[in-house]
Amino acid sequence: MGVSLPRKDLFEIPDGIIYLDGNSLGVLPKGAAIRATRVIEEEWGGQLIRAWNSAGWMDLPRVVGNRIADLIGAPEGSVATGDTLSIKVYQALDAALKMRPGRRVILSDDGNFPSDLYMAQGLIGTIDKGYELRTPAPEAVVDAISEDVAVVMLTHVDYRSGRMHDMKAVTKAAHAAGAVMIWDLAHSAGALELDIAGSDAEFAVGCSYKYLNGGPGAPAFIYARPDIVEGIEPALSGWLGHDAPFAMELDYRPAMSTERLRVGTPPILQLAVLQEALTVWDGVDLSDLRAASMRLGDLFIAEVEARCPELELASPRDAMQRGSQVSFAFEHGYSAMQALISRGVIGDFRAPDVMRFGFTPLYIDESDVIAAAEILQDVLETESWRDPRFQTRSRVT
Amino acid sequence: MGVSLPRKDLFEIPDGIIYLDGNSLGVLPKGAAIRATRVIEEEWGGQLIRAWNSAGWMDLPRVVGNRIADLIGAPEGSVATGDTLSIKVYQALDAALKMRPGRRVILSDDGNFPSDLYMAQGLIGTIDKGYELRTPAPEAVVDAISEDVAVVMLTHVDYRSGRMHDMKAVTKAAHAAGAVMIWDLAHSAGALELDIAGSDAEFAVGCSYKYLNGGPGAPAFIYARPDIVEGIEPALSGWLGHDAPFAMELDYRPAMSTERLRVGTPPILQLAVLQEALTVWDGVDLSDLRAASMRLGDLFIAEVEARCPELELASPRDAMQRGSQVSFAFEHGYSAMQALISRGVIGDFRAPDVMRFGFTPLYIDESDVIAAAEILQDVLETESWRDPRFQTRSRVT
Repeated sequence: MGVSLPRKDLFEIPDGIIYLDGNSLGVLPKGAAIRATRVIEEEWGGQLIRAWNSAGWMDLPRVVGNRIADLIGAPEGSVATGDTLSIKVYQALDAALKMRPGRRVILSDDGNFPSDLYMAQGLIGTIDKGYELRTPAPEAVVDAISEDVAVVMLTHVDYRSGRMHDMKAVTKAAHAAGAVMIWDLAHSAGALELDIAGSDAEFAVGCSYKYLNGGPGAPAFIYARPDIVEGIEPALSGWLGHDAPFAMELDYRPAMSTERLRVGTPPILQLAVLQEALTVWDGVDLSDLRAASMRLGDLFIAEVEARCPELELASPRDAMQRGSQVSFAFEHGYSAMQALISRGVIGDFRAPDVMRFGFTPLYIDESDVIAAAEILQDVLETESWRDPRFQTRSRVT
Repeated sequence: MGVSLPRKDLFEIPDGIIYLDGNSLGVLPKGAAIRATRVIEEEWGGQLIRAWNSAGWMDLPRVVGNRIADLIGAPEGSVATGDTLSIKVYQALDAALKMRPGRRVILSDDGNFPSDLYMAQGLIGTIDKGYELRTPAPEAVVDAISEDVAVVMLTHVDYRSGRMHDMKAVTKAAHAAGAVMIWDLAHSAGALELDIAGSDAEFAVGCSYKYLNGGPGAPAFIYARPDIVEGIEPALSGWLGHDAPFAMELDYRPAMSTERLRVGTPPILQLAVLQEALTVWDGVDLSDLRAASMRLGDLFIAEVEARCPELELASPRDAMQRGSQVSFAFEHGYSAMQALISRGVIGDFRAPDVMRFGFTPLYIDESDVIAAAEILQDVLETESWRDPRFQTRSRVT
């Protein structure tokens, strides 16, 4: 039994805001600003270059990786941090293709987050040997795992619908066909109980600015199954993945650990803030978190369906099939979301018509969910979304 | 005529420290901590996801890129920021190889920073079509530009010796042989007057934590010559390089600008601190800066040669051939540098025997240079570097 949830006291939540967008950018943990100031003033300002040793900067990617490993069910030393999720997808895909040299297919699904598909397309273009990206519908993926598939790359929880793939079953099917498995945990890490080691998948990647509350542009992570690490030939073979970065050798010689998936100089400021953000997980039992998340999602569905007949559920009704978000389709979803945000309930919109609501049990409770549903009902009943100021699309929705 | 140098009042420099390592990690500009706090508390904490629009986060990479463009002699809109320098090297190399499909040689030199060479090796391994990396001595590079060279990739200022390539002449030789030119400006941006557009090079890359004072792990940048941008097929085709990132299309369609060299979600906190750091350049005339840098380097050479016969100059004596650093070779250089640092003079060491001193005219003046030489003389005369505590190598030197 872990600490009781929510833990609102650990976060800075603006007055009058019900924040149902922690699946896009998590809220600010209280210690973050103080930690950033310390890194900037005491470490950078005071210790200068010496801080790479004296303040532990050089080890920070590994230390933060170990904390994330804990949250995704991975062993110590199996997670490298840094870069962006797109870069980590590229690393995993490249490594996977090299593990299956006779095969020419990357299999994903058309519900995957576009950047993952784009990175696959970019890698295919660079290798230029007739590789093919296949993107069937999510429910057709398992049947599409044929013997020519080198790698199956899927996002565990669909960014639009919250629909969840069965990690163990899909991985098993991939392996049965001889394919390598990559899971994107962007919408899973910090939202679900995960057992990435138990899944037997070769790779997992994820970002830390959603449920892990690392802040805008927080570093990404990559897990590699320990038994395959020493066989990985990194495409992005930067000096900090070298076995002896400061020997300044002319030839790349990868570190004999997951460190070989590091690339360049780590983003220390963002890593330090992320490390601070990860302290909110101390004592949290992820099965409690998952139970709370399912309750909140179920409650929101019940409240919204009772109040807002215009909206159509776009997420699995069964909480066991759903990540920590609930989506509703609505023709005027963009404007309705803007109207809702103007009333202090922040969710987001994903093209073409999805209103998306994330439930983060660390700082959201039942009363938030009910209040959000009430305001949503009012926005729809009064058709306040018709207001002209809610029609103009901003660049980021 | 620009503002007068140095501008020590704009920086936090610890008492008793003479910092000759701004070529590795620049000192802290005064506004950085306040800016970080504002981004964290007001923007992230207060505006949450809305800050991508309301606080200008989405445009920050472009805005910061334009400020850097100014400092390297590049036109507005030609510089993208984000990721690490190693990633930007990979992007430039990949794009260059695609521009010369019939050629199979990447030409660099054996004085290049190892990570640049490692990234070339990684790319060659991933493409796996018999590409070759050639690394002659720096002075032999021009003669090595043969008709089979697809791309010449060089670091403008050698990280160990400070020796500078002739940017215009080498670029001209590369182009005469039909090769693409990539310049790594890691030790040039903020240290020299640069005219990257006038050099006609196709690409330039660089980091921002050295002379640009962006802090540990600050984002990198990439310049692409405007006339070639629309032909670039990015390997690292992330969603923020897409023409319409939030349309969530399944196929990558690159932005019709340098933005196509963006990859994933930008590191907002580091970018904001970098933007703040770049304000110290307001009003600085880069020809004044270069003149001051040459004077400081010449003075250091004269002082050290007069005082320290044990040391051998490992940099060009002619300031016109040298970047903003001076290096001396010394058999016991590692220990001597540790002893020097313990006395408050911070330079750094690069294997096998190089003691490296950077001169940053924004916050270093003649009195610093003379004082540093005096202390170095004392360290050598007293052989204080023999102290056992200066023998143990730390991971980062």
